[in-house]
Amino acid sequence: MKIDLNSDMGEGFGVYKVCDDEQLMGVVSSANIACGFHAGDPEMMARMVRLAKQHGVGIGAHPGLSDRLGFGRREIPVDAEEMEQQVLYQLGALSAIARAQEVSLSHISFHAAMGNMINREPALAGRIMQKVKMIDPDLIVFSMPGMTIEQAALDCGLKVLNLFLADRAYDVKGQLVSRKLPNSVIKDETKVRARVRQFLEKGSVTTIEGDVIPVRAKSILVHSDTPGSLELARTVRSEIEACGGTVAPAREVLA
Amino acid sequence: MKIDLNSDMGEGFGVYKVCDDEQLMGVVSSANIACGFHAGDPEMMARMVRLAKQHGVGIGAHPGLSDRLGFGRREIPVDAEEMEQQVLYQLGALSAIARAQEVSLSHISFHAAMGNMINREPALAGRIMQKVKMIDPDLIVFSMPGMTIEQAALDCGLKVLNLFLADRAYDVKGQLVSRKLPNSVIKDETKVRARVRQFLEKGSVTTIEGDVIPVRAKSILVHSDTPGSLELARTVRSEIEACGGTVAPAREVLA
Amino acid sequence: MKIDLNSDMGEGFGVYKVCDDEQLMGVVSSANIACGFHAGDPEMMARMVRLAKQHGVGIGAHPGLSDRLGFGRREIPVDAEEMEQQVLYQLGALSAIARAQEVSLSHISFHAAMGNMINREPALAGRIMQKVKMIDPDLIVFSMPGMTIEQAALDCGLKVLNLFLADRAYDVKGQLVSRKLPNSVIKDETKVRARVRQFLEKGSVTTIEGDVIPVRAKSILVHSDTPGSLELARTVRSEIEACGGTVAPAREVLA
Amino acid sequence: MKIDLNSDMGEGFGVYKVCDDEQLMGVVSSANIACGFHAGDPEMMARMVRLAKQHGVGIGAHPGLSDRLGFGRREIPVDAEEMEQQVLYQLGALSAIARAQEVSLSHISFHAAMGNMINREPALAGRIMQKVKMIDPDLIVFSMPGMTIEQAALDCGLKVLNLFLADRAYDVKGQLVSRKLPNSVIKDETKVRARVRQFLEKGSVTTIEGDVIPVRAKSILVHSDTPGSLELARTVRSEIEACGGTVAPAREVLA
Repeated sequence: MKIDLNSDMGEGFGVYKVCDDEQLMGVVSSANIACGFHAGDPEMMARMVRLAKQHGVGIGAHPGLSDRLGFGRREIPVDAEEMEQQVLYQLGALSAIARAQEVSLSHISFHAAMGNMINREPALAGRIMQKVKMIDPDLIVFSMPGMTIEQAALDCGLKVLNLFLADRAYDVKGQLVSRKLPNSVIKDETKVRARVRQFLEKGSVTTIEGDVIPVRAKSILVHSDTPGSLELARTVRSEIEACGGTVAPAREVLA
Repeated sequence: MKIDLNSDMGEGFGVYKVCDDEQLMGVVSSANIACGFHAGDPEMMARMVRLAKQHGVGIGAHPGLSDRLGFGRREIPVDAEEMEQQVLYQLGALSAIARAQEVSLSHISFHAAMGNMINREPALAGRIMQKVKMIDPDLIVFSMPGMTIEQAALDCGLKVLNLFLADRAYDVKGQLVSRKLPNSVIKDETKVRARVRQFLEKGSVTTIEGDVIPVRAKSILVHSDTPGSLELARTVRSEIEACGGTVAPAREVLA
Repeated sequence: MKIDLNSDMGEGFGVYKVCDDEQLMGVVSSANIACGFHAGDPEMMARMVRLAKQHGVGIGAHPGLSDRLGFGRREIPVDAEEMEQQVLYQLGALSAIARAQEVSLSHISFHAAMGNMINREPALAGRIMQKVKMIDPDLIVFSMPGMTIEQAALDCGLKVLNLFLADRAYDVKGQLVSRKLPNSVIKDETKVRARVRQFLEKGSVTTIEGDVIPVRAKSILVHSDTPGSLELARTVRSEIEACGGTVAPAREVLA
Repeated sequence: MKIDLNSDMGEGFGVYKVCDDEQLMGVVSSANIACGFHAGDPEMMARMVRLAKQHGVGIGAHPGLSDRLGFGRREIPVDAEEMEQQVLYQLGALSAIARAQEVSLSHISFHAAMGNMINREPALAGRIMQKVKMIDPDLIVFSMPGMTIEQAALDCGLKVLNLFLADRAYDVKGQLVSRKLPNSVIKDETKVRARVRQFLEKGSVTTIEGDVIPVRAKSILVHSDTPGSLELARTVRSEIEACGGTVAPAREVLA
């Protein structure tokens, strides 16, 4: 049983860092690398690509809105043309940095507000997926299951890898519980381990209301922008392996 | 006799413009498109690509230092790794925007301080040309004749198109006279026409000191960031045609 | 009869300009100077202050959202604390630049999306006006009549100067007709002159529907970010003077 | 014996932080607050002012070059006019944010490359000190002893507080040993304590060559942008107190 473990990487800027990317790169199998708009800079992107290559980690573009002050979390009004070009710009930038190191991108994962805005507009999602496909038809699109991005990607023939979040509470509809609500983030290691095990063995998650619902996913996303994220990633990985699973990059998981 | 006519394009940002790109695109045969660091933004880059495609104009990357306030004219200390990644980032960004419109880049032309800094360091120039070649071995490098960039490009097997500046005074060494000195910029239309004719018919230019020196070039660069630049471009084009020349994109000129 | 004539100034950045500030400063009586967030930079701000001082023009802060790409026209989510600090930051920055030239600010005028967002929230408007008053209780607040900003300013004891837009169509409610609708911008010089005259002599404007409604204002705002804005400003000024009015800075108008 | 203990504060941006400002503010007596150019943003500046006010810490402006990517450490070419206006802009911005919290600035401390560039040009230093004095004649200028900034400040009648760096090696000329050289940064707590004691009791420092030279200073600067900086600050403070000294803000030290 192969399962991908991914995280957002290189989300610093200049002297700033949000996590220990060097250590975290040794734990995950896919890296979603910030592309210089909400976070990241060319030198940092190249460093992330180098680390990923060394560790055999899949390299993904993690484009966001042009909003360094808000870390790409604010929904800034952009029209469809601007959104498309901002995605292409960032995707192309990381692609060239990777190609110069003789590696290619495996996937794309949309950051925060950019992802939310695309998920709300099927026409926009369709437009962007068609352009992504023109750049690289083998690119795997990362998505929570059931979102507009997943459908748009499938509709135009792109592969999709669905995500499970081991440390975030789900509601009965399969949606994430808002971070602003109590118990939305699961910090207890034992509970995180139990959730990983349940996901792997039964393909389900127990919601915040206590229901058991199916989860369709082949990748676990661990946050990198909170204290303790490195330990969380190690916990998830060790539990995957304890369950008999193998952590593998997106391309292998979907092969 | 085919000769290229090129200009820097899309050097605005958001609401800002430095020239009438729409009109100028109908005059030149190659467009050096700003890539979002010293000037330009994703939407503007896409618009430039669209215009260039409509007019059959060759599309080139025009990367600059990350310095919007200084328009890329200030030499900001960056090490070789940062310079390399900044070039790759911008080149990749424009490449993807172009590919999504089903066109590809024909050339690369380095902006202001970035060009000057690369020209001063042969090792840096060599490093960057090798990376440019990894991204696209068919990319033509634009360079003033005799500069470090030209040699580095040729050394690693890239094609070079040399530039002649019809409205700038040359000294006896074949260098441009500093803009700060009197008579360094030739604004008189009759004189510009005479210089274009001399360049085309005799392959020479008369220096500010009055000497006649050979000029090795197959492309004329016209500035776009000064008032009257559109008229200058039209003047140069009409004189090329009056001399029996044909204005053609870089790829055709070198074919 | 004294009437103020104001315009947004210094809305360029680095090499970029949106209007001929040097000429326009000779026409207006109040300058709303961009403060470096949506437009403007420290050197440009100092240049605007110098020009305003030379021409006896009132100096005002024109703060906007931190959004150079969108020219401050996009509503970017910021909470009340962020909005307050962004206003204070920009107001303080221009104040110091002015004080170093031995002049003081006369007024404040909020730019585009920042103004719209403050006008929609009375509590936010009240909070910001109280802080503006703490910085300078003599600062005059520029506002369209009847807006939340006007009321909030008056409530905390700040003076307000109301604006009339001579080249924009009004509807029967006294609101500006959206720029996206036909005939929303009046470009015909004769019509602009007639509107200025009607405003000055009768204190009214004829709406787009044909009704005549009263206009309560002592200042005319002319746009600077459209072609022909300098001529528009000259037209308005000459009509004010032809009507026997005197163009005077905000402080004199309210004295 | 009163001695000031100061550190650079609020040098993050948006989600980014370089130190635990909340904790550090409880240890120092003066805070040099980043003003939004090399680091900092309006909301963060307001938070720093609030913390400083709560702890009775002196509030200082810490202006830097407009260079977020390089953290203000790169010498970017700016002329004297630009440098002056960049200083005024940042000083005014923080002043207004402070005044809105009913506190005033006590001092100014120039960041990294900006400080180095001003220290190299006496005419520039003189020009800037005169403008600083126009903004607030009571502002105390922080400077290493013997630098151009100190002399320029004294020449125009501004007070100066000289700095001693407890964790950096000095050479026999009283200059800091470059960070690039071995043993330039003293990390051993016992050694740092010994240096603080020697400085306080004997007014001297032992150089990297082993000589004892006098140190003229009334404030100790502790770095905030390195791991362990909070502990370093606590060490220095406890040693000051162990020596019978009292940690006090700049205004009290100079009173």
